[in-house]
Amino acid sequence: MIDQNFYKNTGPYSLDKISEMLSCEYIGNGDLSLNDISTLDTAKEDELSFYNNSKYSVAYKNSSAGVIFVSNELRASRASNLILCEDPYFMMAKAASIFYPNSIYPSFSFSKKVKNLNLDESVKISENTFIHKDAKIGKNCEIGCNSVIGPNVVIGDNCLIADNVSIYYSIIGKNVKIYQGVKIGTEGFGFIMQKNSIQKIPQLGRVLIEDSVEIGSNSTIDRGSIGDTIISKLSMLDNLVHIAHNVKIGQACIIAAMTGISGSTKIGNGTIIGGQVGISGHLSIGNNVRIAAKSGIMKNIKDNQTVAGYPSENILDWHRNTIILKKIRKKNNDKS
Amino acid sequence: MIDQNFYKNTGPYSLDKISEMLSCEYIGNGDLSLNDISTLDTAKEDELSFYNNSKYSVAYKNSSAGVIFVSNELRASRASNLILCEDPYFMMAKAASIFYPNSIYPSFSFSKKVKNLNLDESVKISENTFIHKDAKIGKNCEIGCNSVIGPNVVIGDNCLIADNVSIYYSIIGKNVKIYQGVKIGTEGFGFIMQKNSIQKIPQLGRVLIEDSVEIGSNSTIDRGSIGDTIISKLSMLDNLVHIAHNVKIGQACIIAAMTGISGSTKIGNGTIIGGQVGISGHLSIGNNVRIAAKSGIMKNIKDNQTVAGYPSENILDWHRNTIILKKIRKKNNDKS
Amino acid sequence: MIDQNFYKNTGPYSLDKISEMLSCEYIGNGDLSLNDISTLDTAKEDELSFYNNSKYSVAYKNSSAGVIFVSNELRASRASNLILCEDPYFMMAKAASIFYPNSIYPSFSFSKKVKNLNLDESVKISENTFIHKDAKIGKNCEIGCNSVIGPNVVIGDNCLIADNVSIYYSIIGKNVKIYQGVKIGTEGFGFIMQKNSIQKIPQLGRVLIEDSVEIGSNSTIDRGSIGDTIISKLSMLDNLVHIAHNVKIGQACIIAAMTGISGSTKIGNGTIIGGQVGISGHLSIGNNVRIAAKSGIMKNIKDNQTVAGYPSENILDWHRNTIILKKIRKKNNDKS
Repeated sequence: MIDQNFYKNTGPYSLDKISEMLSCEYIGNGDLSLNDISTLDTAKEDELSFYNNSKYSVAYKNSSAGVIFVSNELRASRASNLILCEDPYFMMAKAASIFYPNSIYPSFSFSKKVKNLNLDESVKISENTFIHKDAKIGKNCEIGCNSVIGPNVVIGDNCLIADNVSIYYSIIGKNVKIYQGVKIGTEGFGFIMQKNSIQKIPQLGRVLIEDSVEIGSNSTIDRGSIGDTIISKLSMLDNLVHIAHNVKIGQACIIAAMTGISGSTKIGNGTIIGGQVGISGHLSIGNNVRIAAKSGIMKNIKDNQTVAGYPSENILDWHRNTIILKKIRKKNNDKS
Repeated sequence: MIDQNFYKNTGPYSLDKISEMLSCEYIGNGDLSLNDISTLDTAKEDELSFYNNSKYSVAYKNSSAGVIFVSNELRASRASNLILCEDPYFMMAKAASIFYPNSIYPSFSFSKKVKNLNLDESVKISENTFIHKDAKIGKNCEIGCNSVIGPNVVIGDNCLIADNVSIYYSIIGKNVKIYQGVKIGTEGFGFIMQKNSIQKIPQLGRVLIEDSVEIGSNSTIDRGSIGDTIISKLSMLDNLVHIAHNVKIGQACIIAAMTGISGSTKIGNGTIIGGQVGISGHLSIGNNVRIAAKSGIMKNIKDNQTVAGYPSENILDWHRNTIILKKIRKKNNDKS
Repeated sequence: MIDQNFYKNTGPYSLDKISEMLSCEYIGNGDLSLNDISTLDTAKEDELSFYNNSKYSVAYKNSSAGVIFVSNELRASRASNLILCEDPYFMMAKAASIFYPNSIYPSFSFSKKVKNLNLDESVKISENTFIHKDAKIGKNCEIGCNSVIGPNVVIGDNCLIADNVSIYYSIIGKNVKIYQGVKIGTEGFGFIMQKNSIQKIPQLGRVLIEDSVEIGSNSTIDRGSIGDTIISKLSMLDNLVHIAHNVKIGQACIIAAMTGISGSTKIGNGTIIGGQVGISGHLSIGNNVRIAAKSGIMKNIKDNQTVAGYPSENILDWHRNTIILKKIRKKNNDKS
């Protein structure tokens, strides 16, 4: 599940070896070879996953994962090939750092100039643009000054990448426009607070941007942690928008300026989001939803709803709140 | 009305020709030569405009425009030199793309280094600063590293342009300070949603920044669509502010960090706007208005008002709302 | 108190001389030599300070400052070594401009390439990175493309500075990660409005970033005005965060995306702040405070509080407001 083009895997590790490195007990065949880490629903028989929330008990029971981090309290439905630990999420972060030690410091430092590249002659590149020798740039692309395209990034045909843009860990489709100062594939805000320190969660995913997407100036799009951040085709993002790690945005969505979407939230197709909206993490927002500017979204929203306010509610109810308060003010005034 | 220094006009087109290109019927003299596009109130006899909202019926009736896009339902007060279409705004966008085919992909790609320029010797320019050979830079200007000044941009005397700044399609006065990472003249968020596609509205305007303005780090200022985005003299913008296309900000306004102003809104002189405020598009905000931080402005505001809240109201009423809810909570508590 | 590594002091000035330059009367020994400016609580006997708010009357009475700007109305408790003026804050700004004439236009323009530097061989620097010859970079640091490190900036060991970053007037600890597009040490939003002009307040402080801090993409951190902006160790800032001048953030704080903190506010240790929060200036926020996303903070908050809303209140009260309005809506509905 981790893209080996972007992240170098130092595995495999045996169940015995990785348990030893993490000072954990395990149940199962210690010689079992683990090649990668993954989520419960996608892990294969040679992969390591974790289970720390009973909300996902079905996925745990059915997972094909070779080995799973789990606590004694939650292990119930599986008897073998488990690594026992108090905090499975924390141990998963540690394990990710073992498999992918270089993800925490992605190498920004390189000097493979455009001259070394085998680019199509239709590509127009300004001076001081750095394109890693292992990046692929499609036909008719135009890339502005002082932009940086990292290793193994793929950019499709007819894309416009403006000035002062950084793109890492990303696969970008055709006819995409990335305006000035946008940062794509940046480090997600993922970590676990400990007593006196912070355990970073390795950010091992990518950003996938589909065809005909536009992204406004100075916006930031973090790459996925495990799995990808996705902006589907035809979606339009205005300036200064923030898209956190593992967010998935559907097709033909419109997101106005200064809106922020927290980690792992999914947004359907054709949804329109006003400016300065904030959406909590791990939510599911339906298709053709309308979200008024400045709303704060804390719950899932079904298809075709129109919402406003914080916490958001049906937009008519939000307007009613304003009217109610006005009436009470008037009544108080009449009394005094 | 479109600045030919920034946008290359491919016209003229005859009424007959442009109607044919757009597959529309017309009424009037097919030989009429159209040199440009414009808005109803400013269009001249050789220019093409559009009318799609009865709110502007007087402007439509009195317009000097040579030809107007209009629907059959709305055409009433004019009998001739009309192009009939279902969606005049959509057709205007198409026509703009015909007159100005290069506006959608402004050319970010160039390599005319500072060495080729005929700059005053008082100008201080850092390395890796790109200044297009057709830009004009005033005396005593200082321009930081990795900044980009696009073709035909004019910058007055004594300006400070910091690092990682991009400026395109702009005319900038004297004593202006543009801090790090600011993007000026970027693509406006203008398009029309179609069933399975998006029709971009060509952004053919400029950004005009008058004397003694300051713009804080990582702010973004989109250029106008037709017409200009204007920041009048002595106005101060803090960091991470977003100014959309065709916004006009009066003199000596103060705009705190993270505030966003939507398209075509006009703000008077001496108005002070707190941080994280959002202002809807097409509004008129008066002179000497005070807007509390985090307000959401959805209606016009008259001179000298002080407002707060979302939707915003008189700041005293906003405070009263807080008191009312506190009282009701107390009453509920006393009951239970 | 002003760091002479960053700001060149043109003093000393005698009390007589500086009063003459500012056209003010003074009381005291005109020959008294003033070497610097400072705040009431930190000024020494050869330094100039100001007093303009009775809230600080104790600090005024006890100040060791050599000379103090004060109005006739407020001078009461001190009889000598005063400069009398109507607006002490305005005069302090003027005096700061005399002592430090170059603070208003920090010199962004330089061309001291990395090649001239005496860097440790463990440091990895990309092309087009500008490091001033008087900056100090620790071991094992990695600095991305198109970044700028200004004069006298100090960066500790093992730091990651990504692409398109600007750092001026700053002292940065070990193990710090500054992601793409961050601007540190930028000009604070400090000025005094006059009738027909704006008097900038010279920004003469620094940014101090302690060990193991991370700062997310496109965030902006203004330097202090007098005194420093401080981010204490282990604090994590997400993308597009704005930290104004003289803010002090404690240890191990977490600040989610798009939050803005206004000038001179202090935040304790272990405080967690959600996304899109706004905090007014000059506040004191305690230790281990929790602030819900989108809150607007206008008052001090004690240790261990959890708050939400705007104006913010206890988070339970904020939820009760939502329930109250829902009940009233239901009652209204039942009636109709």
